[in-house]
Amino acid sequence: MSTHSTPFITPDALLAHWQGHRRLTRRVLDAFPDDKLLSFSLGGMRPFGELAMEMITMTVPMVRGAVAGDWNAATSREPRPKHELLRLWDESTEQLNVLWPQIPAPRFQETLTAFGQYTDVLHNLILYVIDNEIHHRAQGYVYLRGLGIEPPAFYDRS
Amino acid sequence: MSTHSTPFITPDALLAHWQGHRRLTRRVLDAFPDDKLLSFSLGGMRPFGELAMEMITMTVPMVRGAVAGDWNAATSREPRPKHELLRLWDESTEQLNVLWPQIPAPRFQETLTAFGQYTDVLHNLILYVIDNEIHHRAQGYVYLRGLGIEPPAFYDRS
Repeated sequence: MSTHSTPFITPDALLAHWQGHRRLTRRVLDAFPDDKLLSFSLGGMRPFGELAMEMITMTVPMVRGAVAGDWNAATSREPRPKHELLRLWDESTEQLNVLWPQIPAPRFQETLTAFGQYTDVLHNLILYVIDNEIHHRAQGYVYLRGLGIEPPAFYDRS
Repeated sequence: MSTHSTPFITPDALLAHWQGHRRLTRRVLDAFPDDKLLSFSLGGMRPFGELAMEMITMTVPMVRGAVAGDWNAATSREPRPKHELLRLWDESTEQLNVLWPQIPAPRFQETLTAFGQYTDVLHNLILYVIDNEIHHRAQGYVYLRGLGIEPPAFYDRS
């Protein structure tokens, strides 16, 4: 088996891994009191509601672009209340499940330019979106601790 | 090509991705003033020096276990000063490069029990170590902001 065709992880398993992270991020989002989501922050960083909106505007638009080369999705990052963020989150979860299997497998090793400006191998572009979610979710953990709220367990992806 | 053999990402590319994250984490470690590394924290969480020590005791021991089934590595998490953490970090970087290609490729899809207690497919066990690094590094970003220090750019993995 050549190195090129040997998987570290397959597309199906990577989607399952990502959706596990997304379930955890949803719990972090849901753990914030509604009024703190767009107001509380530490160290001059953005409130968690803005970070969640950033995640929403990266996830499905990246995968839709990978499927169809359509990088012009409307991606308003206008602040939203918690119930609306949770609704958009769940909508993205469903869309991700529908779109992901439409990415032709060889494309994950191809170099693309996402959103007209980020040029990299598709697997790196997708890992960037996931890593950005983990990174900003961890900010959310510190914010929750700062609010005296116990965050959900990092290892639980159920 | 069957789903099983189609890569999202190959082992070589995953190592490159991981080492990119490790370069960024090293810069975060290096950005802390020596005396804050083991003393400063927010929300009652562990100081960044302890988190870095956790990363060091997970990375090479996980990969060594994956290579040889040896899960009994001495993993002291005793606090260390910054110059010592940076030395251990660089040592781990070299060891990771040596050990990684010794993992037989099919093993990434096999289920193992790491450290006598964590049972999962190897790719998930390894992603857990990387995700844990991203998660705790992000805590470090908030700590640095809390200290009035601009953290290194998240997107720069050079």
